[in-house]
Amino acid sequence: MAAVLDRLIASIRPADGAARAAAERRQAELTKPAGSLGRLEDIAHRVCAAQGTVTPTVARRAVVVFAADHGVTEEGVSAYPRAVTAQMVANFQAGGAAVCALAKAAGAALHVVDVGVGEAGTANFAREPAMTRARAEAAILGGASVVQALEADLVGVGEMGIGNSTSAAAIAAVMCGLAPRLVVGRGTGVDDAGLARKVAVVERALALHRPSPDDPVGVLAAVGGLEIAAIAGACLGAAASRRVVLVDGFISTAGACLAAALAPACADYLLAAHRSVEPGHGALLERIGIIPILDLGMRLGEGSGAAVAMPVVVAAVAAFREMATFASARVSGKA
Amino acid sequence: MAAVLDRLIASIRPADGAARAAAERRQAELTKPAGSLGRLEDIAHRVCAAQGTVTPTVARRAVVVFAADHGVTEEGVSAYPRAVTAQMVANFQAGGAAVCALAKAAGAALHVVDVGVGEAGTANFAREPAMTRARAEAAILGGASVVQALEADLVGVGEMGIGNSTSAAAIAAVMCGLAPRLVVGRGTGVDDAGLARKVAVVERALALHRPSPDDPVGVLAAVGGLEIAAIAGACLGAAASRRVVLVDGFISTAGACLAAALAPACADYLLAAHRSVEPGHGALLERIGIIPILDLGMRLGEGSGAAVAMPVVVAAVAAFREMATFASARVSGKA
Repeated sequence: MAAVLDRLIASIRPADGAARAAAERRQAELTKPAGSLGRLEDIAHRVCAAQGTVTPTVARRAVVVFAADHGVTEEGVSAYPRAVTAQMVANFQAGGAAVCALAKAAGAALHVVDVGVGEAGTANFAREPAMTRARAEAAILGGASVVQALEADLVGVGEMGIGNSTSAAAIAAVMCGLAPRLVVGRGTGVDDAGLARKVAVVERALALHRPSPDDPVGVLAAVGGLEIAAIAGACLGAAASRRVVLVDGFISTAGACLAAALAPACADYLLAAHRSVEPGHGALLERIGIIPILDLGMRLGEGSGAAVAMPVVVAAVAAFREMATFASARVSGKA
Repeated sequence: MAAVLDRLIASIRPADGAARAAAERRQAELTKPAGSLGRLEDIAHRVCAAQGTVTPTVARRAVVVFAADHGVTEEGVSAYPRAVTAQMVANFQAGGAAVCALAKAAGAALHVVDVGVGEAGTANFAREPAMTRARAEAAILGGASVVQALEADLVGVGEMGIGNSTSAAAIAAVMCGLAPRLVVGRGTGVDDAGLARKVAVVERALALHRPSPDDPVGVLAAVGGLEIAAIAGACLGAAASRRVVLVDGFISTAGACLAAALAPACADYLLAAHRSVEPGHGALLERIGIIPILDLGMRLGEGSGAAVAMPVVVAAVAAFREMATFASARVSGKA
């Protein structure tokens, strides 16, 4: 398993610098003042570099939601009962969740993948490792293979798992070298006592397992979640197949951060969909080196932010692909 | 003409508070933690209030670009020659401009309206009034009638007019009570000398005409533009027909600000698409009391920001309309 993961990681190449440079040259010829489309320009260039072309496409789109349960819910870290994970998976399948409406609006196929809901979830990492290294590796590879099998040019990743903002906070604390109180947030909405319990649980878990940021698989095994591992794998799988990933919020970014730690070139293929209100999100984004597209005060997860940001990427690529040049449109340049 | 405008203004009613309250009650029942969709929730509620319903629709969408020329270009305030206005109108019609690609991506029909390109443009307001009061009123009513004739549930407004960021800055200085140097920006990209010329031109024009923020039509006549007047009218026309307007960037917001000054209830129907890098934009947005949806460093105009923000409004309405409730999906509430 470790050898297969090593091969996946080794297969990831940096994005195409020559394609990016060619994209920047074309952008300068389009009928608009230089730089006037702001971040849409960089987004288009990143898609070009990822796909290795100046004729990028994001026509086939998918949002993948990985779902799993968390033993750490035993510690009273969530505002909602653990049963909600399975209930929400049913809601995704019935089309009633936010991400169902949002993915449809974005013209994206929605895929919901159970990677450990119910009894198959992780152990309580406040008391023992969340999972074995072998299970973490298998979950990463599972996420990668899901994305590699998708017929999609642009993939949004999201998650569902009651308790997973505690896991993501533990990962953020380790990977960013920050005290738990700085990265633990209210998740689905715990009160002050619940927030204090979350901070204490993360502190206890880090003291117990002492995970190292130099061993991302070890971090997942100690304090991770199966859906977070799958998201890390989805990022690796997308990068290996030269596809761009829209990373949703705090929990998905924890997975993306682990992917970028395993394979630094993976970061070339990541776009941050939005800035979550979770306090640990900014540190994870900075660690990866990506800037969120949207800042709308969202904190739902499910891939909802990835779905809302997807049309912005579509717009960036559409303008890049379809605009006329100053020469072709006979528009005068700067005086 | 003034009497017709008075009737239009008098026909604008505040958005429906009861519909908004009902929308907020429905939002609280949807299968997500309360408030977790962030600003998408308020956007959906605003559409409900504007349309007076809890089953809002934004299925029919349009972006309207008003184009006009500006006599003030004689003062050397733009990086591009005046001929570019007409050249870009041709580019819009040929489908080669940014807004063409972006409106298509947003599923919006694009309408380009010449309200004074070429010889029909305004006079040089650094030396004389830009237009007569009667012409300003006619341009407002023209913009209103364009929007009222559209079969669209959601309207984005934008503009094209070389020189119009100088006009918008003059309007912002008057309406927000700010010194010209605080609200004049680089527009399409003037250098430092061009920026100094723009500030001096606005200072000179305000000293010459002494427009009052209590007389928005007088402000337009003194230092406005025909496309800015038409955008003010488009906002009034949309509000009168209970439709939501996505206001593009700095120049469009100058028009929206005048509309809200003429009819304060008009603001209920306005959504700010994005925060432009133009320094005067924030003051205009605050004067109206609207918060931008996107902040992507855009400064193109044309309605490009309105088109990019449109899918966010579509997403907000889709989630609101299509999501299941906790009861219907049998999802447990907070523990």
